[in-house]
Amino acid sequence: MKKITLLSICVILVSFVLSGQEVSNGVMRLSEFSQPQKRNNILIPDVNGYKVLKCDFHQHTVFSDGEVWPTVRVQEAWNEGLDAISITDHMEYTPHKADLIPNNERPYEIAKPNALKKNVLLIKGAEITRATPPGHFNAIFIGNTAEYDTDNSKKENDRLAVMKAKEQNAFIFWNHPGWQPGIAGSYEWLPFVEDLYKNKALHGMEVINGTGLHMKALDWCVDKGLTVMASTDIHNLINLSYDISKDYVHRTMTLVMSKDRTPEGIREALESGRTVAWASKFLAGKEENVRNLFNACVKLSPSFYNENGKNGVVKYYEIQNNSDLYFELELTSGSGTKRVVLYPQTSQVITAAEGQDSLTYDVVTTYVRSDKHLSVSLSL
Amino acid sequence: MKKITLLSICVILVSFVLSGQEVSNGVMRLSEFSQPQKRNNILIPDVNGYKVLKCDFHQHTVFSDGEVWPTVRVQEAWNEGLDAISITDHMEYTPHKADLIPNNERPYEIAKPNALKKNVLLIKGAEITRATPPGHFNAIFIGNTAEYDTDNSKKENDRLAVMKAKEQNAFIFWNHPGWQPGIAGSYEWLPFVEDLYKNKALHGMEVINGTGLHMKALDWCVDKGLTVMASTDIHNLINLSYDISKDYVHRTMTLVMSKDRTPEGIREALESGRTVAWASKFLAGKEENVRNLFNACVKLSPSFYNENGKNGVVKYYEIQNNSDLYFELELTSGSGTKRVVLYPQTSQVITAAEGQDSLTYDVVTTYVRSDKHLSVSLSL
Amino acid sequence: MKKITLLSICVILVSFVLSGQEVSNGVMRLSEFSQPQKRNNILIPDVNGYKVLKCDFHQHTVFSDGEVWPTVRVQEAWNEGLDAISITDHMEYTPHKADLIPNNERPYEIAKPNALKKNVLLIKGAEITRATPPGHFNAIFIGNTAEYDTDNSKKENDRLAVMKAKEQNAFIFWNHPGWQPGIAGSYEWLPFVEDLYKNKALHGMEVINGTGLHMKALDWCVDKGLTVMASTDIHNLINLSYDISKDYVHRTMTLVMSKDRTPEGIREALESGRTVAWASKFLAGKEENVRNLFNACVKLSPSFYNENGKNGVVKYYEIQNNSDLYFELELTSGSGTKRVVLYPQTSQVITAAEGQDSLTYDVVTTYVRSDKHLSVSLSL
Amino acid sequence: MKKITLLSICVILVSFVLSGQEVSNGVMRLSEFSQPQKRNNILIPDVNGYKVLKCDFHQHTVFSDGEVWPTVRVQEAWNEGLDAISITDHMEYTPHKADLIPNNERPYEIAKPNALKKNVLLIKGAEITRATPPGHFNAIFIGNTAEYDTDNSKKENDRLAVMKAKEQNAFIFWNHPGWQPGIAGSYEWLPFVEDLYKNKALHGMEVINGTGLHMKALDWCVDKGLTVMASTDIHNLINLSYDISKDYVHRTMTLVMSKDRTPEGIREALESGRTVAWASKFLAGKEENVRNLFNACVKLSPSFYNENGKNGVVKYYEIQNNSDLYFELELTSGSGTKRVVLYPQTSQVITAAEGQDSLTYDVVTTYVRSDKHLSVSLSL
Repeated sequence: MKKITLLSICVILVSFVLSGQEVSNGVMRLSEFSQPQKRNNILIPDVNGYKVLKCDFHQHTVFSDGEVWPTVRVQEAWNEGLDAISITDHMEYTPHKADLIPNNERPYEIAKPNALKKNVLLIKGAEITRATPPGHFNAIFIGNTAEYDTDNSKKENDRLAVMKAKEQNAFIFWNHPGWQPGIAGSYEWLPFVEDLYKNKALHGMEVINGTGLHMKALDWCVDKGLTVMASTDIHNLINLSYDISKDYVHRTMTLVMSKDRTPEGIREALESGRTVAWASKFLAGKEENVRNLFNACVKLSPSFYNENGKNGVVKYYEIQNNSDLYFELELTSGSGTKRVVLYPQTSQVITAAEGQDSLTYDVVTTYVRSDKHLSVSLSL
Repeated sequence: MKKITLLSICVILVSFVLSGQEVSNGVMRLSEFSQPQKRNNILIPDVNGYKVLKCDFHQHTVFSDGEVWPTVRVQEAWNEGLDAISITDHMEYTPHKADLIPNNERPYEIAKPNALKKNVLLIKGAEITRATPPGHFNAIFIGNTAEYDTDNSKKENDRLAVMKAKEQNAFIFWNHPGWQPGIAGSYEWLPFVEDLYKNKALHGMEVINGTGLHMKALDWCVDKGLTVMASTDIHNLINLSYDISKDYVHRTMTLVMSKDRTPEGIREALESGRTVAWASKFLAGKEENVRNLFNACVKLSPSFYNENGKNGVVKYYEIQNNSDLYFELELTSGSGTKRVVLYPQTSQVITAAEGQDSLTYDVVTTYVRSDKHLSVSLSL
Repeated sequence: MKKITLLSICVILVSFVLSGQEVSNGVMRLSEFSQPQKRNNILIPDVNGYKVLKCDFHQHTVFSDGEVWPTVRVQEAWNEGLDAISITDHMEYTPHKADLIPNNERPYEIAKPNALKKNVLLIKGAEITRATPPGHFNAIFIGNTAEYDTDNSKKENDRLAVMKAKEQNAFIFWNHPGWQPGIAGSYEWLPFVEDLYKNKALHGMEVINGTGLHMKALDWCVDKGLTVMASTDIHNLINLSYDISKDYVHRTMTLVMSKDRTPEGIREALESGRTVAWASKFLAGKEENVRNLFNACVKLSPSFYNENGKNGVVKYYEIQNNSDLYFELELTSGSGTKRVVLYPQTSQVITAAEGQDSLTYDVVTTYVRSDKHLSVSLSL
Repeated sequence: MKKITLLSICVILVSFVLSGQEVSNGVMRLSEFSQPQKRNNILIPDVNGYKVLKCDFHQHTVFSDGEVWPTVRVQEAWNEGLDAISITDHMEYTPHKADLIPNNERPYEIAKPNALKKNVLLIKGAEITRATPPGHFNAIFIGNTAEYDTDNSKKENDRLAVMKAKEQNAFIFWNHPGWQPGIAGSYEWLPFVEDLYKNKALHGMEVINGTGLHMKALDWCVDKGLTVMASTDIHNLINLSYDISKDYVHRTMTLVMSKDRTPEGIREALESGRTVAWASKFLAGKEENVRNLFNACVKLSPSFYNENGKNGVVKYYEIQNNSDLYFELELTSGSGTKRVVLYPQTSQVITAAEGQDSLTYDVVTTYVRSDKHLSVSLSL
């Protein structure tokens, strides 16, 4: 009898389990379709000895006009493989104040324990929100937010607010320049901006905000030595804005080439301008940075096959993208494969006529100025 | 000259656009990988003239211990094709109160305008949160939450709180029975529950909460005529708990067979017990409801081919799943295909020996009691 | 002892099964990632009482210059939800003849038993392969292929070959007109074509071949009453050419609006011209057919919400795509939502100013001529 | 006038292109949903200086009972990131011979040019197909197939056939031992097998064939020093058997730890037994090989956070899977996270009580014997 009972239990268990279910304390687990909690690492090789950190320094929560509790930003960042984030709620704009007590210290305080446990670097930040022009500035690595003047109805306070951030030794960047195209002068290098720049109170620009590449901002960064930044400026949920279910899709971010994975390393890299903006298929940044990144990610094999054609010998090469970035190349000089699409972690075979030293391509998914792609020479 | 200029502009525009970019006011759109905003309809045919509404009546926001603003619940619901939702924050548990002013009217008020514009039916609700046992009860179709006693330290208030919901003419269901297995008596049909039941202050049970099928709750619903409910009890983001990137994955929900897509229709259906719980690959509910749902979704074609084998004639049929549900069938009687897996919106070919009226299958991904699958007879 | 043994076996079995493995006869099944065999139904509602059959009448196998055995074409068709296919190997081009004995009867004979068992309608066909111009013609519903003259070096045989197909009562369409742009006259309405047309030996044109929409062919079909055809002309594997892993991606096909799912029904529909070409996001066909298809798939709800804005009342509607097709609409007249993207089986909310009878949109993912989209009026 | 015309052309072009279309010679490209041709690299770090080559040495074509032309096997291999393949058609079983002239030299000859151009290493092979027992043997690195005796009706030829392969200096492995469980003795270490083994005419065993892990074969390999092999034995299309649309799904393969990416390197590694079988989520092989592979792929970070709990200090670590393999770990000794699921290229946070040197886990998705998982010790 006992044996039969045991066998029955066994059979019942197996039969449940075969259908993908587990029973414990009268509750059957139907977890087949649940989302596994995991950090999805974004693969980018080191660039000349620097680690390439994935960073998003412009995000909102319910403490300004966002729609999530600060903890969500850490959870999203961990899932999507970010190394460092800032929560930068508007200091002067708190539309939820009927329900939520305004306090710009709270997003950082609330998110911090989660960040510590998930190994996500949380950089304290805030968005200085002034009427356009000049518009909004992000300050990260900031001190106490209570020190900021929050009355943004007075124009004279605009400068005071940004200079307060400078006093706190913040890293300051101009957000989405030209975001309100209807306002005259809003997309210009204003005296206000020139003043901050001269006084070393402006260190970077948001060249990409969400899905928008601010073309003038890229050129200003290149011409004036400002740091290229890219951020989501997310207010609701990342997965409602980005189709991250596809493994080749990532949120907009700043790639920071840093000595190590620490806040100090990031700060040094930002001050040295070692960043590339990444959004969708596209990279934007200073030519040197984009070139170094490309060279770290894309490798050409030696020729592995020669084919005798009617126009002479054609040599075969493998070109490999060792990263989760995307590159599209168009031939500008030489005789070889005209167009090369390098999806993340894939290779292509390209061919070249014998007797050439190199092929030259425009990497048309990169911008090193608003009107210029990175040009690369592949040595044969 | 002018012509050339125009042509150049044209070429530049085309060249940008070919790379998937559009430029407006100096901002280039990199929207290729952005998430399209859309309502993803869940396809389930009408069941005997009733519409099958997709409902989740147990969800949290920052107003209790959730991590999102109420508007997010509407946005998620719309994206995932839900017809009706309730936000049911804990009346008596408000861990964010240092930052957020407790007020159980607010989640409904804040979400309502978005729900109206998205055509998502928002049913006012709340979670009555008492110590276990008895634990938590959800009340939907409620009145003013200010009337509720929120001091849950006093045991005598437990009954008062639920009866207040009944006075407001709420539909009341017991949440996740047995959720704290360590507590003696927590998964029993307690006198407290019996009292509510007799006084018509208990109308349903959460048979599925998140990914847990509460087996006793299913049997109680079947035996005592309570309504079968399934809900997410979501606190953070749906996409962090459910792998909804896969098109065959949906959040846990109650399928409500309703005369029309209105709150009144839903109320009538809930009171009449016309529901099926759906989570992962599994359906649970009263046999009649699960059978009607299966019959609406799965159709067997007439035989389309006869094959002469050594053991006589074998007839071929097509079995079609016209829904986004999932069914797995195992033959229990008759001579034919032993196992049939019906993914959403797919068909299979099955065979049967000639000379039979029917094949009988257990639909092993359904539960009509904790220990019983739906048995279906397919007429040949 | 025995009890312990049984329990151990039980535990071992459960432990294996928990890891997703089943053991039988010393072989453990690791089937988690295997591809389920199933027919993925493509959902398109009936159009004015006609079933919309999914058909691909131009495919190759190893019997001409293809790379698969004929059975593969049936298996692919079943998986991808096709109703009817033709295998149309080149009669006069058999590059594998060193290994494979040329015989154009064999692809049909070999594929037939699989087609019968999978309920895929297999229409006998062949490609009449002449030098360009005129190029290639597909003949389906053909008789014995041995009757065809296969010497295509003689120009006078071009007409004989097509007329032989006509004698066999075939349905004949011109494949990929203009496919060799380098050849003068290859994309013209040649006397040769005119002669066939006048003699009722030309019934349709391949408006879409693979991923190419042959624009002149569409206009010829519209102007001369020929049937619009779309086909893959697949030589290797469907999944190497189409990214069918994404559930909204399908191979190129002809949508045939047929009285029933039979070869006879298809023949009647082809002769009556009730077809729409479908490839990628795009539909092409005669205006009446495309309009009927659109109307069957897309439904506008009554207004479900009114909003009082500063410019008057705005009414909200839900527009629903009940099909696996894709539609993109741009407003051409009226005051309302300017652009509507209708992914498969999704809905959007659109708004319209009060006091209008309708909004007019161009469905920019359709072509009813090479330079004209379908224009639809949505009644408010 | 001219300017307007140019502008119009420009606008028309842009308007087409915006919809994702390009027009050339009257043909519009609708390529949005087409499958990009690319090599999807499978990422596995080097193991102790050896490259981990992805190999499938058992595949069929139309030249025996497969359903594809030999070129397809190269195309599939390239797409799926394989380094080396063999086509191993049955020497003695040619069911397509009514249409196809049997010749076992042809699959290799036909596939070779494609393999050269795609940089896929093509190893000449064949399947020696004898009645069970003993069943089938694969021979790779073979010479001329014409030398083989193909009359498999005579039992005495079984040994002759395998010894002929040995004479040609082939690497020989026993395929799917026990594949016909109904035949007595078919899953035993037969005298026939012992004879081959003693005469060094048997070098490996197919431990995994398709989705079946042959448990006795694993133990035989471990006990007798034979090389562990895994292969698809594919007959139709890889994508019809494996759900490779999901990026974490790969076909069954042998991971060969080789000095370099050459046939010679592979041969040396096979003879040295440096292989691991990979199918679905599972790895099987000799303990040393599986351990080395695990150690190369999975890294534990130093502790990054300490938490003071009521039971003392808990330390936080990041465990990172740097490969496209999948690992599932269950704690067997120590106080820490009980279960760790490491999806490809992801990390998890694990915790451990302070004051321990290590945690010990069973890697339950590996088999180093039929009844034993790899046990790993993670140093804290």
